[in-house]
Amino acid sequence: MNRMQVVYRVAGSAGEIEARARAIAVEQSIEMPPHAVRNHRVSAEVLGRVEQIVADGPDHFLVTISLALETTGFEAGQMMNMLFGNSSLHPDLTLLDVDLEVQAASRFGGPRFGLDGLRRLVGAGKRPLTCTALKPQGSTVEELAELAGQFAEAGIDIIKDDHGLADQHSTPFAQRVAAVQEAVDAANRASGHRTLYAPSLTGGPARQRKQLTVARELGVGALLIAPMISGCGALQELADEGVPILAHPALAGAARISPTLLLGKLFRLFGADAVIYPNHGGRFSFAPALCRDIARTARTAWAGLASSVPVPAGGMHPDRVEELVEFYGRDVMLLIGGALLEAEDTRAAASAFVQRVALCEHRG
Amino acid sequence: MNRMQVVYRVAGSAGEIEARARAIAVEQSIEMPPHAVRNHRVSAEVLGRVEQIVADGPDHFLVTISLALETTGFEAGQMMNMLFGNSSLHPDLTLLDVDLEVQAASRFGGPRFGLDGLRRLVGAGKRPLTCTALKPQGSTVEELAELAGQFAEAGIDIIKDDHGLADQHSTPFAQRVAAVQEAVDAANRASGHRTLYAPSLTGGPARQRKQLTVARELGVGALLIAPMISGCGALQELADEGVPILAHPALAGAARISPTLLLGKLFRLFGADAVIYPNHGGRFSFAPALCRDIARTARTAWAGLASSVPVPAGGMHPDRVEELVEFYGRDVMLLIGGALLEAEDTRAAASAFVQRVALCEHRG
Repeated sequence: MNRMQVVYRVAGSAGEIEARARAIAVEQSIEMPPHAVRNHRVSAEVLGRVEQIVADGPDHFLVTISLALETTGFEAGQMMNMLFGNSSLHPDLTLLDVDLEVQAASRFGGPRFGLDGLRRLVGAGKRPLTCTALKPQGSTVEELAELAGQFAEAGIDIIKDDHGLADQHSTPFAQRVAAVQEAVDAANRASGHRTLYAPSLTGGPARQRKQLTVARELGVGALLIAPMISGCGALQELADEGVPILAHPALAGAARISPTLLLGKLFRLFGADAVIYPNHGGRFSFAPALCRDIARTARTAWAGLASSVPVPAGGMHPDRVEELVEFYGRDVMLLIGGALLEAEDTRAAASAFVQRVALCEHRG
Repeated sequence: MNRMQVVYRVAGSAGEIEARARAIAVEQSIEMPPHAVRNHRVSAEVLGRVEQIVADGPDHFLVTISLALETTGFEAGQMMNMLFGNSSLHPDLTLLDVDLEVQAASRFGGPRFGLDGLRRLVGAGKRPLTCTALKPQGSTVEELAELAGQFAEAGIDIIKDDHGLADQHSTPFAQRVAAVQEAVDAANRASGHRTLYAPSLTGGPARQRKQLTVARELGVGALLIAPMISGCGALQELADEGVPILAHPALAGAARISPTLLLGKLFRLFGADAVIYPNHGGRFSFAPALCRDIARTARTAWAGLASSVPVPAGGMHPDRVEELVEFYGRDVMLLIGGALLEAEDTRAAASAFVQRVALCEHRG
């Protein structure tokens, strides 16, 4: 089909909602008065259409609008633009859900590795995956490489840059990535593990292109990007690079796009193999039900796409491993950062983390 | 100085706010427990600091936190990350304001043309500037080129792509830009005007790079970008291209970043010469006071940066020209799109628009 179904939750009264829904359909397509459109094809095919209006509580409605896929060009940034670009400037609606057919989803790309591919890459069988972050920013290259070596020796599956590591003076991208990858490679040779390092890509097009060239040359095994910082288009292009992509939720807390949609569906649609999000009970306030929803949405069969691995994060602790695997099941990657750094012996803490997760192979 | 001052509006009680403020300072810098940091320089210089807490109503506080500029690397996307990346995922705070010194601002770049430069480019003297948009998307290349020719013959200063025009099948970027620029060039030769065309740059790094190459080769005189779609880093890099940049607010309605800050200060800091935003009284609901604030902030002397031209838009009409110049003064660019297309004779409506604005040279 040529259209996608988009659901908005709109505040309003029964007397106003039809007009409001039509206005949203216009705003998210032709963005001009429909009667002034002279091209008949545009009126017939491009203009958004109100498909359904359903009450949702006393003051809200769920409005389903179909938008022509051609307006997205199947480009991720343009998809975000057509879903919510101008409407983000209106205070009365939230972007709740999107549905599209398999053929359309495949044109966006989706995860090239997904949960299964990531497991194969690191040799994880059916167990949950483990992840940690190199912190804090401002550290020296040597400090971060040393830390990476310890984490890799402990057997953590994916070591990512803290998303605050970019191209700053203290650890410029090229030097940092070279040193960290070398430390990870050395640890892998010694241990037989297949730990992946995911450096954080940042900057505009020219800077990211340089970083990508460096990363390729150094044989980096994964990449981290924050799509709401760098643009969803950057995530989509990275998915063609041949390595798994982790999506970070920085700046993704826009109060009016459903986190379940953004993290569990859209980042996945655009090519994220793993989606990081704030877990309940840590530093952030996402409720357990929301966390469960995000994880479930990222993994559930949708539009023919591979599953993305959900990566709960933020104030997590090794003592919570069993509780979290109980909550999420085994199809999850646990990201523990600060708690490992707080330990007297970081390497021992990392090993203990890895071992507790390995024991979960038969749980969940 | 090595730090920038960042103001958040935080919900909370007097008993909790100090701890919450410290948590924000950590989240927006080292993002790990401070006591676990082993590098003394990081603790001394990189960790965020709570500078001030002031009550703002019964349930809120204005919290000023200083962050180390080094964490931004003076890169625009990383700046957004450090200002609000993880904190955007907390529901209890809004990013309200940022202040930094002249030397720091100059390292980000700022507008290379600004209001004065734009006026010189189009030969506008001291009058307000005029702008319109090529719509609707889904039109053919010929239709958009024809429209552009009419607008340019009428003497509109800047003709921009509708932000929904990207690289879609109906008007692929290269064909569209070639045809439109040709139409604008022909009109300029005939009229002696200096109308600029601003195509919309979209996509990830590789796609945008191709589009930029095409735009350069075609002698395009301005560029349009939506920084919250493409990443603020893309805006910052574009400002080095030697043509004025218009920033579009698509997806910038994140309910928890002050529009005045985002549009009037940050887009300007990153290099936007003109900042488009929703005007009051049209399709959008920004209040007059907010619109006035955005315009004032974009123009007011700040951190040694050139002024950005405020571009009120959205449901505007030529009948409102005098009212808007009265409200904003002459240092403004009026963007009227749909209303010109609704007219029986679009070229005549565009000419009338241009003439009404020219008469405002001595107003405001």
